[in-house]
Parts: sequence; C-alpha cells; structure tokens
Amino acid sequence: MADLSIIVPVSGVVSLAFVAFLVWDVLRQPKGDEEMQRITRAIEEGARAFMRRQYTTIAYLAVVVAVLFAVALGAVRGLEAGFRTAGAFAMGATFSAVSGYVGLHISIRANGRTANNSLSSLDQALRTALRGGAVSGLIIIALSLLGVWGIYHLYGGPSAPEQDKVILSIVGFGFGASLVALFAQLGGGIYTKAADVGADLVGKVEAGIPEDDPRNPAVIADLVGDNVGDCAGRGADLFESTAAENIGAMVLGVALVPFFGINGIMFPLVARAMGLMATVLGVFVVKGREDRPPMSALNRGYFVTMAVATALFALASWGMLNPANGLAFDTRIHPLTWFFFFLCGVVGILTSLAFVYVTQYYTEARYRPVKEIATSSQTGAATNVISGFSVGLEATALPGIVISAAILISFYLGETTGLSAAIGGTPIPIGGLYGTAIATMGMLATAAYILAMDTFGPIADNAAGIVQMSGKGAEVRGRMDRLDSAGNTTKALTKGYAVGSAALAAFLLFSAYLEEVRLLREAKGLAPEISIDLALPAVFVGAIIGVVLVFLFSGLAIRAVGRAAFYIIRDVRDQFREDPEIMKGSHRPNYARSVDICTRGALREMVAPGILAVAGPVLVGVFLRPTGLAAEAVGATLMVGTIAGVILALVLNTGGGAWDNAKKLVETGLYGGKGTETHKASVVGDTVGDPFKDTAGPSLHILVKLLSTITLVLAPLFV
Amino acid sequence: MADLSIIVPVSGVVSLAFVAFLVWDVLRQPKGDEEMQRITRAIEEGARAFMRRQYTTIAYLAVVVAVLFAVALGAVRGLEAGFRTAGAFAMGATFSAVSGYVGLHISIRANGRTANNSLSSLDQALRTALRGGAVSGLIIIALSLLGVWGIYHLYGGPSAPEQDKVILSIVGFGFGASLVALFAQLGGGIYTKAADVGADLVGKVEAGIPEDDPRNPAVIADLVGDNVGDCAGRGADLFESTAAENIGAMVLGVALVPFFGINGIMFPLVARAMGLMATVLGVFVVKGREDRPPMSALNRGYFVTMAVATALFALASWGMLNPANGLAFDTRIHPLTWFFFFLCGVVGILTSLAFVYVTQYYTEARYRPVKEIATSSQTGAATNVISGFSVGLEATALPGIVISAAILISFYLGETTGLSAAIGGTPIPIGGLYGTAIATMGMLATAAYILAMDTFGPIADNAAGIVQMSGKGAEVRGRMDRLDSAGNTTKALTKGYAVGSAALAAFLLFSAYLEEVRLLREAKGLAPEISIDLALPAVFVGAIIGVVLVFLFSGLAIRAVGRAAFYIIRDVRDQFREDPEIMKGSHRPNYARSVDICTRGALREMVAPGILAVAGPVLVGVFLRPTGLAAEAVGATLMVGTIAGVILALVLNTGGGAWDNAKKLVETGLYGGKGTETHKASVVGDTVGDPFKDTAGPSLHILVKLLSTITLVLAPLFV
Repeated sequence: MADLSIIVPVSGVVSLAFVAFLVWDVLRQPKGDEEMQRITRAIEEGARAFMRRQYTTIAYLAVVVAVLFAVALGAVRGLEAGFRTAGAFAMGATFSAVSGYVGLHISIRANGRTANNSLSSLDQALRTALRGGAVSGLIIIALSLLGVWGIYHLYGGPSAPEQDKVILSIVGFGFGASLVALFAQLGGGIYTKAADVGADLVGKVEAGIPEDDPRNPAVIADLVGDNVGDCAGRGADLFESTAAENIGAMVLGVALVPFFGINGIMFPLVARAMGLMATVLGVFVVKGREDRPPMSALNRGYFVTMAVATALFALASWGMLNPANGLAFDTRIHPLTWFFFFLCGVVGILTSLAFVYVTQYYTEARYRPVKEIATSSQTGAATNVISGFSVGLEATALPGIVISAAILISFYLGETTGLSAAIGGTPIPIGGLYGTAIATMGMLATAAYILAMDTFGPIADNAAGIVQMSGKGAEVRGRMDRLDSAGNTTKALTKGYAVGSAALAAFLLFSAYLEEVRLLREAKGLAPEISIDLALPAVFVGAIIGVVLVFLFSGLAIRAVGRAAFYIIRDVRDQFREDPEIMKGSHRPNYARSVDICTRGALREMVAPGILAVAGPVLVGVFLRPTGLAAEAVGATLMVGTIAGVILALVLNTGGGAWDNAKKLVETGLYGGKGTETHKASVVGDTVGDPFKDTAGPSLHILVKLLSTITLVLAPLFV
Repeated sequence: MADLSIIVPVSGVVSLAFVAFLVWDVLRQPKGDEEMQRITRAIEEGARAFMRRQYTTIAYLAVVVAVLFAVALGAVRGLEAGFRTAGAFAMGATFSAVSGYVGLHISIRANGRTANNSLSSLDQALRTALRGGAVSGLIIIALSLLGVWGIYHLYGGPSAPEQDKVILSIVGFGFGASLVALFAQLGGGIYTKAADVGADLVGKVEAGIPEDDPRNPAVIADLVGDNVGDCAGRGADLFESTAAENIGAMVLGVALVPFFGINGIMFPLVARAMGLMATVLGVFVVKGREDRPPMSALNRGYFVTMAVATALFALASWGMLNPANGLAFDTRIHPLTWFFFFLCGVVGILTSLAFVYVTQYYTEARYRPVKEIATSSQTGAATNVISGFSVGLEATALPGIVISAAILISFYLGETTGLSAAIGGTPIPIGGLYGTAIATMGMLATAAYILAMDTFGPIADNAAGIVQMSGKGAEVRGRMDRLDSAGNTTKALTKGYAVGSAALAAFLLFSAYLEEVRLLREAKGLAPEISIDLALPAVFVGAIIGVVLVFLFSGLAIRAVGRAAFYIIRDVRDQFREDPEIMKGSHRPNYARSVDICTRGALREMVAPGILAVAGPVLVGVFLRPTGLAAEAVGATLMVGTIAGVILALVLNTGGGAWDNAKKLVETGLYGGKGTETHKASVVGDTVGDPFKDTAGPSLHILVKLLSTITLVLAPLFV
C-alpha cells in the first residue's frame, strides 16, 4: 500500500507558500486615495487594539486552564501524560491564535485595496477580496493540519508502540484550539454585534442617517467589528473543526491498525491535505466579470475545488484504505472497502452542498421565508420578529434530516466494509464509525475554500463601507453593493456549512469519547462496555443539563450583546448631544471613544458564557459521580447538548440571516422601501437577528466542539 | 392492608357535587346592568361559535385517528386489543372535551358576574372569579380520575388476571385526552393570540387607543380568546397530565403487585382523589379583603390545599404501600417503604413550589430580569426583544436543575425501599421508578387548585375588560386592575407548574414505554433488554429528529399566530377605513366579523402543527425499522424530544411572561410611562411574547405528553 503521508507536510508547506504569494499579491495593490487610507487606518487601529487586548485576555485564561488541567490529569494519569496534554493544548491554542491574527491582518489590508480596486474594475476588486480571504482560509487549514501532524510526530509518530496513547495526548491540541476559538468567537461576536446594533439603532432608526455614514460615531467600531467578529471568529471555528475532526478520526483509526497499518491513522491528515491542494487550485481560477453576478465567479471556484477534492479523495481512499492491497486481508472484509469509504466521503461532500442549498432557501430574498418576513413587516416590528423567529425554528427541519441521513448512510456504507474491532471483548462497529468519520472529512474537504469565501464577506462589506464613507460615485457604489451582497450570501452559507460540519465532527468525537472511556475502563479492570442509556435517571439528568447548558450559554451570549450595545448607544447619543456639529457633518465624531467602549464591554461580557462552557460539563461529571454513572451522564450531556446546540444554532443563524435579507428586500423598494414604517419594522428584526446570527449562533458551533474536546481530555476524571 | 380505593369514586362524586354547588353559587350572582350583559353576551356568542366549530373539527380528526389506530393495532395485536384501545381513546377524547366545554361555559358566565360584583366588593368579585375557575379545575381533575377509574373497571378491574394488558389497553384514554388537548390548545392558543396581537398592534400602537377600548373591532375577539385559549387550553393540558400520570404510574404499579397486591396499581388513583378533596377545602377557605392584595387570599387557599394534600398523601402511603402490613414481606425490603415513598411525594410537592418561585423570579416586575427588559426598552424595540429573549433562555437553568434534582432524589429514595422486579430476567429498578412516579403524583396533587387559580386569570381579565368597556368609575376599575394583576401572576405560575409536571410525567411515561417494549419483546421471544443507547447511529438520529420535531412544531405554531393575526390586523384597518365614525365612537364596529375571521384562521392554521405532532414519531419508527432499532430510536425521539420540548417551552413561557410584565412595569410610569417610545418598544416585546407564551409554549407541554402516549400506544408497531 502506498505511503501517501508525505503529502501532508508537502501540502502544508505548498499552501503556506501560496499564502505568501497571495499576501504579496494583495499588498502590491494600490491603497487608494488619502481619504480611503485614513479610514482604513482607523479600522486597522481599532482592530489591532481589540485583538491585542483580546488575545492578552485569552492568553491569561488559557494559561490558567492549561495549568489546572495539567494538574488534574497529572494527578490521575501521571505527570508525563499531564504535561503532554498541556503541551498539546498550548500548541493548539497558539496555532489557532496565530492563524487568526495573521488572517485578520491581511483581511484588514485587503479592505482598502478592494475598495480602491472597485474604482476601476469589478474583477480586480473581487479577486483582491477573495485572495485576501484565501489567506485566512489557507493559513488556518494549513496550520491546523501541520499542527496535528507535527505534534503527532513530536509525541512519537507512526513508530511509537502505543498509538492510542500518542493520539489521546494530542487531543489537548483540539481542546486548546476550541478554547481559543470559543473566546475569539464570543469576544469578537459580542464586539461586532454590539457595535452593529448600536450603530444601526442610533444611526438609522433614531437619527435617520444611512448605514456607514461618517457622522455616526460608532461607524468605525462597526467596521472593526466585521473583521474581528466575522473573520477571526469563523476562522477560529473552522480551525477547531478541522483539528478536532483530524484527531477524532485518528483516534478511530487506531482501531484500524490491524487492517491498514498506520494508514488508518494518517488517512484523515492526507484527506485534509488533498482538500488544501484542491483549494489552492480553486482560488486560482476565480475571475470576476463586469457583466456577471460575482456569486457565479465564486461558485465556479467552489465547484472546481469540490471536483478536484473528490478526485483526490478517491485517490487517497484507493491508495490507503485498500486491505487487499497490502498489510492485512480477511475474507470477512469487502474487497471494495476503499470504494465504500470513498462513497462515505462523497456523502460528506454532498452534505455540505445540501447545507448550502438549504441555507440559501431560508435566507435568500428569492424564496418564500424571507418574503414572508418582509410581508409581515407591514404590520410592524412585532409581527416581523414573530415571523422571523418562526422561520428560524422551521429551518431546523431540513438540516436535521440531512445530518441524520448523512450519519446513517455513511455508517451503513462503512459497515458494509465488514471491518470490526473489539476492545476487551466488546465489539466496536469500527467500519461504520470510520465511515461517519470519512463523511466528516468529505464535508471538511473544501473548508479552506469555504473560509476564503467567508472572509471575502467582511472584506467586501468593509470595502463597501469605505467607498460609502469616502463619498465615491454611484457607479462605484453600485459595483461594491454587488460584491457586498455576494459577501452576505457567502457569510450565510458558511454558517450553514460550519454548523453542519460541527454536527458531523461532534458525532465523530462522541465515538472517540466512548473509545477513550472503554480504554480507561479496561485499564482500571472494569467491564469496558459503555452505553449512554437515557432510561437511567443519572444519564437522563446529564441529557437535561446538556440542553440547559446550551440554552443558558446562548442566553448569556445574547444578553452580553444587549448590554454592550446599550453602552455604545449611550455613547453615540452623548456624542450627538455634546457636539451638535457632528450631525451637521462639520465636526468629526470621536470614533476611538466608541471603539474603546465597545472593546472593554465585549471582553468583560465574554467571561461569563466562556466559564460556563468550560465548567458546565466538568460539574456534571463531578456532581453525578456518586451515582456511579458519571462517564455515561457526561456522555449524555455531550451528545444531547450537541444536538440541542446544533439545532439552536440553526435557529439563530438562519433566523438572523433571514431577517437581514428581509430588511434588504424592503430596502429594494418593496412595500415602500426605505423610510417607511415597514422598513423601520424590518430594521428591528435585522437588529434582533444580529446577536443571534453573529454572536450566539456561531459561538454555539464552538461550544458543541468544546464539549467534545473537554470531555475527551477529562474523561479520566469521570471513569 | 387497608383498601382505600373506595375513596376514588367517592371523591369524584363529591367533587362533582361541589362543582354543582359552585355552578349554582356563580349563576345566582347578579349579571349586572344592560351594558355589561350586552358585552357578556357578545363574548359568549363568540366563544360558543368558536368552540362549536373547533370541537366539530377535533371530533372529525379524532375519529380518523381512532379508526387508523384501531386498524393498525388490530392488525398487530388482534381485533379485541385494537377495539379496546380505540374505545379508551374515544372515552379519553370525550371526557376531555366535555370537561373543557363545561368549564368554559361557566367561566364565561362568571366573567360578567365578577365584573358586576366588583362594583360593590373585592371579596365578592374575587370569590366569584375563583369559584368560576374552580368549576373548571375540579370538573377536569374529577373527570380525568373517574374516567381512568371507570375504564379500568370496565376492562376487568382489580380481578382481571392479566393486569398489564388491562392497563395497557387504557393507555388509549391518555392518548385520546392528549389528542384533544393538543388541538384544543393549538386552536385556542392561535385564536387568542392572533386576536390579542391583532387588537394590540392596530389598537394600541397604530390608532393609539387604550386596551379593551370598545372602538377596536377586535376587542371582543380578544376577550373571547382569553377564554378559549387560556381556560380551555390549560384545562385540556392538565386533564391530560393527570390522566397520563395516572396511567403511567399504574403501568409501573403492575410490577409492584407481588409486594402490594392491587394497591400498587390503585395508589395513583387514591393519591389523586386525596388531592381533589384537599382542593375542595382549599377553594372553600378563600376570602378576599379590601385592604389586602388578592394574591395573598389565593395563596392562602393554595397553602391550605397543599398542607391537606400532604397529610392525606402520608395517610394513603401508610395505608397502601406498607409491605410489612399485609400481602408480602421480604427482608430485602425496607420496613419504612411507605415513608420513603411518602418522601417522594413530598419531593414532588416541593418541586411544584420551586417551579412557582422560579417562575415568579423571572416574570415579576420586582426582580432583575423584568427590570432589565424594561431598561432595555429605552433603546428601542430591538433591544427589548433581545433582552427578553435572553431572559427566556436564561430561565431554563434553574427549572432544569430542579427537575433533575427531583428525578434523582425521588429515584434514589425509591431505590432505598429495596423493591425490585424482573421481566424475563432483566432486573428493573422498580422501587426507584415508582419513586419518580410518586413524585409526579405529589406534584400533581394540587392540580385542581392550580387550575382554579389559572382559570381565575382569564375570568378576572375578562371582567376587567367588561368594566372598562362599560365605562365604570375609577374605583371599580382600580379594584378590577388588582384582580387582573393577580390573575396575570396566577396564569404565569400555572404555566411553570404545567411544564414542570409535564417533565416529570414524561419521565414516568418513558418508564412505561420501556416496560411495554420489554413485554412486547418477551411476547415475541426476543431478549427483553432495551437500552436507549445514544452511541448507536439510529438512536442518535432518533434523538436529532426529536429535537427537530419540537422546534419545527413551535415554528409552525408561532407562524400560525403571525398569519392569523395578519388577517385580523387587515380587518381592523379595513373597518377603520370603511367607517371613520368607528374611531369617533359614534358607530359600533363589526365585532362579529373579527371574531369570525379569527375563528376560521385559527382552525385552519392548527392543522399543520397538529398533524406533525401525531405523524412525526410514527414516521421515525417506520423509517428506522430497517436498522432493527426502531423501538430504541423512537425512545430517543421521545426522551430527547421531551427534554428539548420542556426547555423550549420554558424559554417561550418565561420570555413571554417577562415581556408582558416589563410592558406593565413601563406602564406604571417607569421611563416616562405610556405614550413614550420606551412604552412602544415594550409593547413590541409583549406582542412578540404573546404567541410564545400562549400558543407555542403551552402547546409544547401537550406535545411532549402526546409523544409519550402515542409511542406507548403504538409500541407494538416498532418492536
């Protein structure tokens, strides 16, 4: 059997080289005129100030958590295991932070350059924005891949005798990544929406000035927010998804060593590497045309990425997962094993497509749901909110069915391979579980491209803001509006994609958790079977707490935005009152003051939900220890919490996106357009949706993965 | 051992006699002046028209469902079992409908009489309203009890040889009750909130006229709605809770026959009978005083009911659950078994108290959450909505913990008794399960009194409306406002109580479902063990679908209100436009037209969510049959769906209640009071909360119980 694993470091390095090229390509674009540069600098300063403070806060929190966990695990499993996990944790946290930081810096620089390029050509603007976004996308996925690969080799690599221990000690990498992701998304999400809600409410609704009007003191904070919330947050989210997915699949791969040797463990990394290569190609082919919608150019790149990724996936499956081809052979094993596993990958790729289409249906103005919200805005804000919320609730059904189908189909495809394993006498349906793992890999194969499209969104949004603020002509504004609208679509799609992949990755991590509990039990001389049987009261209670955790967390996150927004609204009102010249446009408002108020507010408010997310599952395990079912109860918290988290995230993301586009639909002139009561009502819905879709929803994606990694790391405490 | 079961029919008959006395007492009160009688008649006509149409629709649906199920069950289990279940179903449906109908009729008659009595004395008004409410409360609980008791005896009673088959065939009674409850609550809930939202938006917000102003064409529809939604809906809800709880506990009681004989089966009925007697006493002692808040009089009655119920509960436990005392004795069984079970009952009673207090904290204006919503109304409707929604999310935590504690404590108290049983070699922790069953009985012991307080709410609300519409003086209005405000509190409390008891009753019904599946497997010669192991993909998928079902159902219910409200808003606007004299007060609006539009809208819109609720769990079982894990998957749908349903209901109920009271808080003059932008913002939140707290939330209580009864009835199809 071919050893394809060399492609892992190669693709990582190639991607980083391509990133360097993209950075050079973006930075060589002209920065625009004095006014544009002034605005860009203000955004840069604000973003840098926020990121500096935020990452300092996160670093402190991460150190505290790392020490606590190293001590706890050290006490249970010995000092070395504790240190290894803590080391992996530190590395995961650092890599996540670095990739977020670099990506963000380039995105901000791409803002002004995209705006300037839009003066002359749509293609130039589109490419600058997408390439700026691709820097984030590629660096995130490449560092995630190189990180897991590097730490695996650091801790012994393929030649280590006990593969399971090696891989379990790198679970800390995923946990470090999720912790940073949680705070990056929470802090950034609170910041961006507090600024957005504040700017919208006081600007559009109260003062009656347009979006991105330079007279609004919160306008720079709002633009900064797009970068720190949308770019940095989603980047950390998908960094974590891919890292967690790699690790989870590698844990399962250990059970496949008898069949595929080390290939079972390396396959997830190779599959990811293939996806990276496909993305490089996909980004390269995108070219905008003045007479075509920007979305069709972006979609072309996406389909190229997807097609190449599928082909490479087939290659990798055939090369690495072909038992007849090499190390092991067993007549119970289907000769087309590699093909069934490849089909699992295809299931994953199709799942991502399905999520993209379903999200489009529920959030685009062409379809029934958004139209319905716009219609109900005619009767006021209340009916608009009711209608949007019901759309969000309704939008959980199709994704729920898609995820269910993906899990079942990939599981049974995997079962068909005939692979099975046993731990301490308990048979594990490893073929089926590995099938779901491969579906997750398929879903995440295009992650880098999706991330590039996602970051394209805020870059286009900011560029449109800069064009608007620097008072450019209607033609340029029209061009930017087209890009911005494509950006809104890509942002919505990515959220659907992110939540779908979080759900699949979580199912994979459950299996890893159960595997780990079995191994721990075996090591303690207990019967290794574990079932998360909801009929047992303690397990049922664990499930209740899982759901409560998700809801409480969302409540705290949303409340944080409300509170932070309240400060900004007061500041803007104060500024208008203190200096009436601002509204006349003759005095410049104090942008920095709003940025500063927002930064402090967001960082203060992210602490409570963050602590809840980390402490919640631990407390379940501790409190339910006397029942003797702590590991099972924590498993229920994890699984049912994940389901509830994914579904609630769908409500919040979709509802928010639909409200946003219903407002935009009204702004196109429907029911009287801007300035009418209908429009005001639609703005209320949009504002309500802001913390849903950009704070609580995306934070939930991370919460569900954090639940998985934290329970996996701390499993020794519950058994 | 004493045979206390004679108390069951006796208490039922005594309660019905007391109901007759209350009816006489309410009807002999004077009806008030001509104007009052005119309004009352309009409400009566509207309510009767709605109820007639609604129950006709429900009857058709029920017949279809009964036939389908009789056929399906008949095919699997033989004709007789099919007919028995269908017969029980018909009886449950009829009893539920009758008790709802009678209670509603008296409530409507109590409206005008309460209004008239408020002219002279608070005490008279309070007593009329409470006694009107007690008619509903007592008749519902009495008929639920007599129904289960009667059908049990009809199908063989204590002397039948196979108790398990007898009791399983009366499960249909619970299913019939839940089906009627579902449609009663959905239809009534959609009606009431469509009317309320419509009346509020066009009246208060657009036209700037006060609530209950006779110029508003939707005002009568709104008053009718209070009756058909709040009274009839909650009545059907608790009818179903008590019936399902009785049956579920009786199913478990079968396993206790070796220890307590028939007492294990009869105990749930006796406990309920004791609660009824306690309520009769509690209602009797309530007496309002002009110088005291009405709430304290109502609370006095509640505490009397609770104390008497506790004492009687101890008596029943001692008399019936005392193994040393009679039929069986086993040294493994704790001699104080009756006492441990009594303590489980106390846990239930304390749980209901805890729910009441937690609900108060989150929905009363004295505490932080409501104040916070009022504060955020200053910055507009959007921040008000965000803040209220986050309060709702947050308010899931304490109830979740209370329920968890109640389940765990009562289970382990029950385990201490040492009772255990075995079905086909599988040991069942029957002591623990029966402990949770008894906790549910404790929680539901005061159900009749709680229902009386709940129905008090809409009666007081309507009476206040009648006083307002008939232009009575400020002193009378002030008196009615005090009653109305007490009514708002009791309505909020009952919802907390209803959802808490739904959660406990559901846990009980899970056990019954598992028991049933075990018996069915045994009968088929399969291994009877069943575990709802979430680690299995099919079971996990069942859990996902459970959560999706709950969210989609809520979305459809809320959307239904939005759509129905839209029709009414248009009608009111049309009426104002067609006849400008209406606003001047010189022409009477066409109330009947609004009532009619609302009725048709509500009934049309209740069909989709209703079908989803019935078909959803069945489809899960059918689609997942090929996995061989259909019964387990359906179990996961049931359990995880229940958790999600209860938690989501808490969000919707509490959020809605908090928004309502935040608006009332602003109306007391906070932040400028009525007429300000802050007030308008608070009205938006209140309106958004309306379908949450009065349509989707309460319908979810019923959905979770319907899931239980439907899966229990249809279990033979999944095994």
